Amino acid sequence: MKIKSLGLDNIRSVEWIDDTESLQLIDQRLIPFRVAFVQLTSVKDVCKSIKEMVVRGAPAIGATAAYGMVLAIKEANNVSKQERKESFEQNYFDILSTRPTAIDLSNFAKKIYNIALETDYSFDESLKVAKISVDKMVEQCKNIGEKSTDYIEDGDSILTHCNAGPLATIDFGTALAPFYKAKEDGKDITVYVDETRPRLQGAKITAWELEQAEINHKIIPDSAASFLMSKGKINKVILGADRCLKDGTISNKIGTLSVAVNAKYFDVPFYSSFPWSTIDLESDSIEDFKIEYRDEKEVKYVTSYEDEMLIANPKSNALNPAFDITPPELITSYFTPDGVLSLNELKNKIESIDKK
Amino acid sequence: MKIKSLGLDNIRSVEWIDDTESLQLIDQRLIPFRVAFVQLTSVKDVCKSIKEMVVRGAPAIGATAAYGMVLAIKEANNVSKQERKESFEQNYFDILSTRPTAIDLSNFAKKIYNIALETDYSFDESLKVAKISVDKMVEQCKNIGEKSTDYIEDGDSILTHCNAGPLATIDFGTALAPFYKAKEDGKDITVYVDETRPRLQGAKITAWELEQAEINHKIIPDSAASFLMSKGKINKVILGADRCLKDGTISNKIGTLSVAVNAKYFDVPFYSSFPWSTIDLESDSIEDFKIEYRDEKEVKYVTSYEDEMLIANPKSNALNPAFDITPPELITSYFTPDGVLSLNELKNKIESIDKK
Repeated sequence: MKIKSLGLDNIRSVEWIDDTESLQLIDQRLIPFRVAFVQLTSVKDVCKSIKEMVVRGAPAIGATAAYGMVLAIKEANNVSKQERKESFEQNYFDILSTRPTAIDLSNFAKKIYNIALETDYSFDESLKVAKISVDKMVEQCKNIGEKSTDYIEDGDSILTHCNAGPLATIDFGTALAPFYKAKEDGKDITVYVDETRPRLQGAKITAWELEQAEINHKIIPDSAASFLMSKGKINKVILGADRCLKDGTISNKIGTLSVAVNAKYFDVPFYSSFPWSTIDLESDSIEDFKIEYRDEKEVKYVTSYEDEMLIANPKSNALNPAFDITPPELITSYFTPDGVLSLNELKNKIESIDKK
Repeated sequence: MKIKSLGLDNIRSVEWIDDTESLQLIDQRLIPFRVAFVQLTSVKDVCKSIKEMVVRGAPAIGATAAYGMVLAIKEANNVSKQERKESFEQNYFDILSTRPTAIDLSNFAKKIYNIALETDYSFDESLKVAKISVDKMVEQCKNIGEKSTDYIEDGDSILTHCNAGPLATIDFGTALAPFYKAKEDGKDITVYVDETRPRLQGAKITAWELEQAEINHKIIPDSAASFLMSKGKINKVILGADRCLKDGTISNKIGTLSVAVNAKYFDVPFYSSFPWSTIDLESDSIEDFKIEYRDEKEVKYVTSYEDEMLIANPKSNALNPAFDITPPELITSYFTPDGVLSLNELKNKIESIDKK
């Protein structure tokens, strides 16, 4: 993870620990107030950590699911041969059911599921594949940053929404990778950070990551982005994705669609940034998107470290859709490991992945 | 104020108390957690209450400024004749300087200023005019509700942003007046309430007012409105205004522009609702708008009752524009005391006011 000032430059937000055969996560719920790690040794713990958002960010959830499946294989090997298949299938199902929107989760889980079946539940083989897959995704994020340098100019003021940085993606980030690269290249940029209600991943996590990297940034209420665009204060939008359909439609954190509509209206380029694990090869229409509605408590209460505070009329109900859907006509280009792609280029690339 | 369940139906959010010659405000910062009143006996207190948002909402600020000017006349009568003009001018200037965006403030203050000069600082005359002006505005808000009934249909799902209800407008509300009328008429509507970061006037005040009136409503994060529009869940937008220029441009709470852009994109009618005191007869261009930037603390901390909580990376800065500017091409019609007006009808009406 690119957080040198905290000595975290050699640590990943999701990391397999060989010695203890456990999965180590940075507890993202505590950022920016504390950097703390949790060790997971069971599939049950893995599922809880994804559901409760100890780990979040589509690629990080994907990596967690991959190692969760490795733990599922370990657990399958600890039960009788008769019970093995049932234990394994149940764990696989539980992991898939943790959160419905990010596709990286099922892409990674499915990969290890298949390896398990091919290798008769080989722990070593599946762990090897999990590690290679995660490394590949990290490498892809790095490439997103390196191959988009022409798109980031000195003096840029760039809006990002939610968090698609090292914590969300194990290392470089998807949306943040270009900012790290710009910093490395000596470009002077300002990042406007949407606070990202209700869970405030922007104000808490993205702002913290940018501060650690000494990249100029300002937190803004989500609703202020439109005004800043109208005043010419934001000249680009770069954010991540939780799922990208074959037609280029993306699903991402609630508020993304609003940013995209405003960017279109004010003629500000809008880029979505993701590794290949975010592609959904199986859905053809937005009707297939499962939009997660989370507990209304996330809207009515805010949390800080270990406290929570009521910030709404207690007797009113709240609605908390966690993601929205942005159609390709609102997306200028896609920041990918293969470079910045037009919609047609993206479709061709997806077709070539699909044939493999 | 239309809050019968709390016995507040005969109380106004801004009220002159004859016995004590003081101004009584409901402390809006404590809603929904407590209903408490403050008594103001000096211009200094009035200015502090406006700045610190004990009172907020363009019409309520206007009424507060009117009675603040009455107190300024009282204070002018308590100093020597030589000092009178200076004391009065200083108080007038202080009241005008409290907040820059809402025009009702200066419209009301100017009215009482002129009466003072015409009547040689007559306390009784100025108080009489202040009361009549406030009553007129309250009556206008009531008319907004009554004259827009054709625009509210059974089954409507209507988005509102920030708070333009009884607390903000002394009694009926501007944006909320049509909802109260719909309730009275037995129409079944659902109101989506933007929580309205950073100060959460939607989640705290609008939701509370709608709950008291037993009107169906749901609080949503500001950034979720776009998604709900895309899904056909919101079929109208009604919100207030802090200032309306002669060309129909409005300034209103930050986030209004974003809602308007999204409403245009998803073909949802967008209505701005205000009494005549919200018209700015003196500005011709949006360059004249003074957009207030408030303390970054309002973004980085939330408050609940008397506590506050840090909800952002402490070492990051935040930007806090309190209002934005929505051009007439994004506004379907205007809800006014004279009925629902097109842009041209509004312009004609403003011209007729201007000639008076």
